[in-house]
Parts: sequence; structure tokens; C-alpha cells
Amino acid sequence: MTEIDWREIDKQAKQWVKQAGEQIRNSFTDAINVDYKSNPDDLVTDMDKQTEQFFIKKIHQKFPDHRILGEEGHGHDISTAEGTVWIIDPIDGTMNFVHQQSHFAISIGIYHEGVGQIGLIYDVVGDELFHCIKGEGAYVDNRPLQKRTPVLLEESIIGLNATWVTKNHRIDPDILAPVVRKARGTRSYGSAAIELAYIAAGRLDAYLSMRLAPWDFAAGLVLLEEVGAVMTTVDGKPVDLLEQNSIFAGEPELHRNILDNYIQKGIEKDLYIKLNR
Amino acid sequence: MTEIDWREIDKQAKQWVKQAGEQIRNSFTDAINVDYKSNPDDLVTDMDKQTEQFFIKKIHQKFPDHRILGEEGHGHDISTAEGTVWIIDPIDGTMNFVHQQSHFAISIGIYHEGVGQIGLIYDVVGDELFHCIKGEGAYVDNRPLQKRTPVLLEESIIGLNATWVTKNHRIDPDILAPVVRKARGTRSYGSAAIELAYIAAGRLDAYLSMRLAPWDFAAGLVLLEEVGAVMTTVDGKPVDLLEQNSIFAGEPELHRNILDNYIQKGIEKDLYIKLNR
Repeated sequence: MTEIDWREIDKQAKQWVKQAGEQIRNSFTDAINVDYKSNPDDLVTDMDKQTEQFFIKKIHQKFPDHRILGEEGHGHDISTAEGTVWIIDPIDGTMNFVHQQSHFAISIGIYHEGVGQIGLIYDVVGDELFHCIKGEGAYVDNRPLQKRTPVLLEESIIGLNATWVTKNHRIDPDILAPVVRKARGTRSYGSAAIELAYIAAGRLDAYLSMRLAPWDFAAGLVLLEEVGAVMTTVDGKPVDLLEQNSIFAGEPELHRNILDNYIQKGIEKDLYIKLNR
Repeated sequence: MTEIDWREIDKQAKQWVKQAGEQIRNSFTDAINVDYKSNPDDLVTDMDKQTEQFFIKKIHQKFPDHRILGEEGHGHDISTAEGTVWIIDPIDGTMNFVHQQSHFAISIGIYHEGVGQIGLIYDVVGDELFHCIKGEGAYVDNRPLQKRTPVLLEESIIGLNATWVTKNHRIDPDILAPVVRKARGTRSYGSAAIELAYIAAGRLDAYLSMRLAPWDFAAGLVLLEEVGAVMTTVDGKPVDLLEQNSIFAGEPELHRNILDNYIQKGIEKDLYIKLNR
């Protein structure tokens, strides 16, 4: 078997991402045609579907043996991570796309036999491309990203939506409230892909969400590994690439600190936590 | 008395804001020299001080009778809003500046006899300038911003830091938790000026913070009035331009809904709330 040329695939993927981004930016002169899926928090747009179709067509033409896992479900029905799989979110942060016309990203993780090889997160309106090839370092545009170094909770900025510290069906608000109080600050941008990219870039130190799909975190996982950050489920288990997961990512020492001293302690105190695994 | 030429002042202010922004962006090649004020959440940087000095010098030269109110306290000691007053935050979102080197803004509100005449909020790294002259409409760069139209809480995105729904010294977390649960989403960007500009631009529908200084909200107030949005203290009183205030801004119907049905109801139920007035 010949060796796979990841640089060639990366070059191609980047070109498509930039092209798709330009098409999306140009679409903002048109009225946005919004479609509602099962609930109003889950907005789907024509542009979401069009952008996924764009990638599917390009990938089929150029790499016919690669498979695709995507949000809109027009890719392949995937039950194993065998071979080369593109895990694509054409517009991560759909609510931002509809409401803000900014702060959303194209997210593409390319995996081979279950191992992340390429991560691309493109903030379309901010025009920042976070990218990496496994083992070659991570970048934002042309600037290399530093390996993450230890950070104290008291000096950290955590990506966390206010939902998770108010009463909700997934996690007792008392588990993470002490983290919010002790951290230097919290932020919430409404796009998991951007929040994961920000950990890679050192703008956030950790990020937590109780439910994400593979296409929300696949690219982020590759980027985080490349800068020495980690991603697990909220209770510290490995994430499953083919399923919904709770996601907790961050600089490793901070991640360990929050996991041991807040999340595990909460679970031991019988505070409720519902994990998607 | 001759009439004041606000367009001339606006033109000059915009030019200085862009110049200052460029200087700040160029500084990112240097190491950031951070100084700690009273606590580590309150980061002050050389660049903050330098940028304020830049504006003070320019304003003194060009408009010697104008007065300046600014965060670093090197402007004038201001106890009245008489005459023409520039209310300046050279870097709004200092924690973002230090930690992220992005998501911070230069914020300038220019008031005459206490009335907002010019509002400028410049997202320095995002390179977006939100601006207005009273009565002439608001803009982001060259694009006019629409007048705000009514929005339901269920369809709104609220700018709110997770701090205010966890135990804190200023507001009972039970007052705003129901707002978080009912809203379509919440966001937190770590710069009050940017969050207020986003309400003007329709990216957020409301924003709430329990303690802001005049330079954090002065420019935002002018922008919001120009698009038909409102700003009050958290209990619905007029804000004091010369003092710290709790701030609650938003599209007017949403603002009224949250004020009447959540904040006032919370106060009636004796939930704690400490307002800076």
C-alpha cells in the first residue's frame, strides 16, 4: 500500500474551506432562509445544506475512497472509523449564523483508522483559519501556535455557557458553579469548534459542553492533540468519534484539576450528571 | 455661540481610533508588560496607559476646551457633565487583551451638556468600527444598522456572564437563571463595549452586567439610542454618566419584559440585589 500524502489532502481541504467560506460570506446579501428542525434552538439553513453538498461533491471527485460523516446526514452511514473519514460541520454555530451572521465556523477533522490526521477550523467572518497536520504543529493562518503550558484555575479563562450553571437536565448547577467563581473569567461564543480552536490558540484554557456531536469536536480534537491539550468526556473518559459525547477539553493540568476537584467531587456527592455515552 | 461641528469631531475621532488601533495591533510582536492593580482580574497594561495618553494629547491639541473622562485617571477630574466631554476606554476588555490578544475594543463616547453626540466602538483585532453621530443613524464600518424591532425572550440571544447566575455578592442567581433557561441562547465575550455594540448591530438582543464604569458604557449608550434600543440600571433607572452603574441594555420590548417579569419579581420576592447607584 502506498503511503497517504496528508499534505496534499490538507492543501486540497484548505482550498475548499476557503472557497466555501467565500460563498457563505457572499450569501449574506441574500435573505437567510431558515428552516426549523425539531426545536427552535436547532436552526438549519439552506447554506448549511449547500455547504455540506459542496464538500461531499468535491471529496467524492478527488478522493473517491474517502468517507464522510456530517451533520446533515447526506454523507455516508458510518458505523466504524475504518479507512479515511472526513468529519464535517459545514456551519458550526448555526444560531450565530442566523442571528449574528458572524462567529460561526467550518469544521473539518480528517481521520485515518480512527486517528486524527488533519484539523481545520475556519472562522468564516473573522477570516481566521486554525489548522494542523498531525505531528507538524498547529497554526492560526501563518502563525504557529505554542504548546500549551500549565495554567492555574485562578488564572484561567473557561469557555462555558451559563446554561450549565443554571438548572438543566444534564448537570447539577452546583458542580460547575465553584469553577466559575474561582476562574479568572468565563466566556461563551456559541460555536464549539471556535471554542476548541481558541484553546489550541491559548485564548481559552478549557471548554465544557454537555452534548456535542462528532462533527462539533472532530477537528478540535486533532488541533488540541497537536498543542498538547486534551479532550475527554465530562467524566474524563475517552471520547467516541462516532457518537454524541459530553465534552471537556483543556490544558492538561487545568483539565485534571477541574476533573478531580470539582466534577468527580460533585459525582461523589450525588449531584446529578447525565453523560451521553 | 457658534454651532459645534460634530461631523468634524467625528471624523477626527475616527482617525485617531484607527491610528491607536494600528499601534495596538503592532504591539503584539512585543512581549506584553502586564501590571496588576488591586486584584488579578483587573489587569492594566502599558498599552492601556499609552493609548489613553495618545488620545489625551490629540484632544488637548485639537479641542483644548473639551474635557476627558477615562479609566486611567490621567484625564480631568470630572464631577459634572457640562461642556463637551470625551468618555474614553482605551482598551475595554483588558483581560481579553492580555489573555487573547483579541476581543477588546477602544470605546469613545462624546457628550455635550450630558447628551450623547458621538459613539465609537472599535474592535481592534476584528477590525470592525461601530459608530454613530446622534440623529444620523448607526453604522458598522460602512454598513447602516437597522432600527431594533421587538424580539421575544424565547427567540433572543442575551449577553450575560455565567458569574451572575452563580452565587456572587451582587445579584441572587435565582433572579436571572429563569432568563437564561428561557432565552434562545446566552453569550459572553468579556468586553462590555463590544457586547453593547452587538446589541446595536442585532447580534445580541440584551446585555446585563452588575457593575460598569462610565467609560465601559458611554459609547454604547449613544449607539443604542441611535438604533432605538435602551439602557438603564438593572432595576430600570436612568444610568448616571459620571458614576459606576449596574447596566441592563436591550431591545425595548425584551428589556421591559425581563425587567417586569424577572428582575422586579425577584426584588419583590426579596431575592438579593445590590445596585451601584
